[in-house]
Amino acid sequence: MASTAPTFKPFTLALVQLGQIGGDKSANLKHAREMVLKAASASGHAKKPDLVVLPECFNSPYGHVHFPEYAEVIGYTPGKPFDVASSKSDSVKMLSAVAKETGKWLLGGTIPERDAVDGKVYNTATVYSPQGELIAIHRKESETLTGGNTLNHFDTVDFARIGLGICYDVRFPELAMTSARKGCHILIYPSAFNTTTGPLHWELLSRARAVDQQVFFSMCSPAQNLSAGYHAWGHSLIVDPQGTVLAEAKTDEDIIYADIDPQVFTDARTGIPVTRQRRFDVYPDVSEGLKA
Amino acid sequence: MASTAPTFKPFTLALVQLGQIGGDKSANLKHAREMVLKAASASGHAKKPDLVVLPECFNSPYGHVHFPEYAEVIGYTPGKPFDVASSKSDSVKMLSAVAKETGKWLLGGTIPERDAVDGKVYNTATVYSPQGELIAIHRKESETLTGGNTLNHFDTVDFARIGLGICYDVRFPELAMTSARKGCHILIYPSAFNTTTGPLHWELLSRARAVDQQVFFSMCSPAQNLSAGYHAWGHSLIVDPQGTVLAEAKTDEDIIYADIDPQVFTDARTGIPVTRQRRFDVYPDVSEGLKA
Repeated sequence: MASTAPTFKPFTLALVQLGQIGGDKSANLKHAREMVLKAASASGHAKKPDLVVLPECFNSPYGHVHFPEYAEVIGYTPGKPFDVASSKSDSVKMLSAVAKETGKWLLGGTIPERDAVDGKVYNTATVYSPQGELIAIHRKESETLTGGNTLNHFDTVDFARIGLGICYDVRFPELAMTSARKGCHILIYPSAFNTTTGPLHWELLSRARAVDQQVFFSMCSPAQNLSAGYHAWGHSLIVDPQGTVLAEAKTDEDIIYADIDPQVFTDARTGIPVTRQRRFDVYPDVSEGLKA
Repeated sequence: MASTAPTFKPFTLALVQLGQIGGDKSANLKHAREMVLKAASASGHAKKPDLVVLPECFNSPYGHVHFPEYAEVIGYTPGKPFDVASSKSDSVKMLSAVAKETGKWLLGGTIPERDAVDGKVYNTATVYSPQGELIAIHRKESETLTGGNTLNHFDTVDFARIGLGICYDVRFPELAMTSARKGCHILIYPSAFNTTTGPLHWELLSRARAVDQQVFFSMCSPAQNLSAGYHAWGHSLIVDPQGTVLAEAKTDEDIIYADIDPQVFTDARTGIPVTRQRRFDVYPDVSEGLKA
């Protein structure tokens, strides 16, 4: 994860606002796979996506009581070679396979993960290359379960540097601040706000992270299911660096697309040059001195 | 400026969205005085205000070409006794007198200030007690003119700790972050967005600062005057810690009021406990290690 200026070229992003998430994990994985295939085929959008995104907790009912039961050992160590075929995680195997089948980058939402060594349960995002390699993981930093202690981003090599966060992480501006200062062009947070916090803060926080850091910003939610124990807000969205909402789902299952234009990113930073005006003589730079 | 838990009791805030700001400084001061008197009398609001606020650059046309001409030497040094009567600043004398006359706390917007020692020009907010004492100044941190290097707040003693920023400072989340972590209950930024940045970001950034830091947040603008060289956005507003807009002006000269309720502040922090969950094991606390 080099910090030198990464590639930024136009690309198309697809968010899968996944529905039909229930108690049967294999059914959840089957439906998620179908929806990634559908997103990759891009019916209803002019350009096929380069990157497909699934929501938070797409293979399990949402709720901390469920996470230990659904947790899988992934076994991936950042920076070390990893053979997906050897993983004990059915979810990782499915995601790797569908990334390879579609030839798309895939941010596989999040799954409950059990660490192989300490047995703790994390809420973890995984990322796959178009060749099906698992190339990055991010453990949710904040609240509940066990908080991660790395601030992650990944390079697609051919189009962008992408920052990762998960849901409630959006309430901690330092995470987005750090990702942006490490050169990310877009931050993507698989998320699941509820029907109380959603109308209050979902769009506000997405637009705020985008404008404050002058990056594209996106949150991908499960569809709303009022018969489930947890009522996700839905409203998956993609915001540009000026705070304009480029695409936003309603509450039902849906796939939304946006074409990400590097010129908008450059123009925002030229027009309002905050990225060159920060006063690190007065306050510290939160992106320095990170542990990881 | 102690950092121990400050008093927070219900109080009423009034923002003067000042109009008729022209090239004649003495006329500007006269009208500002009249409007502070009007705000203090609280016609149209049940409770009289405890604190009255004027906008950015209320005694001068807005624009960097004008600031050196209108700049005044204040002569105040934080922490040292200061006799307003001895000040060379007509604006400071007027503000002190009207604070004393009304018996209200007064955040006297901002004025162009020339430093007595180095001659540099600052965009400076001044604060007066109900006895007419000048008790705090804040120099704009960001952009243009000369940036200040202190992050300021003041205690009213009897109702709240109040953080100060000016306009473009709102684009630097570290300032609000620091004020909030130093115990401020409300942040007030005399400001003057324009008719391009206003519709894009004025309300978004105000609500974002409030929700991210779980504080009340307010920006006070001059009225919009399309015959002036600078078209201020107006829309002075007061937002609660959940991001709800309590009061917002339109574009014309106006006075808006809000009753600030500490219970809303407490409930926001109980309901969404981010203030107890920050990961200073992962990233540094920007409010530590400040130079001032």
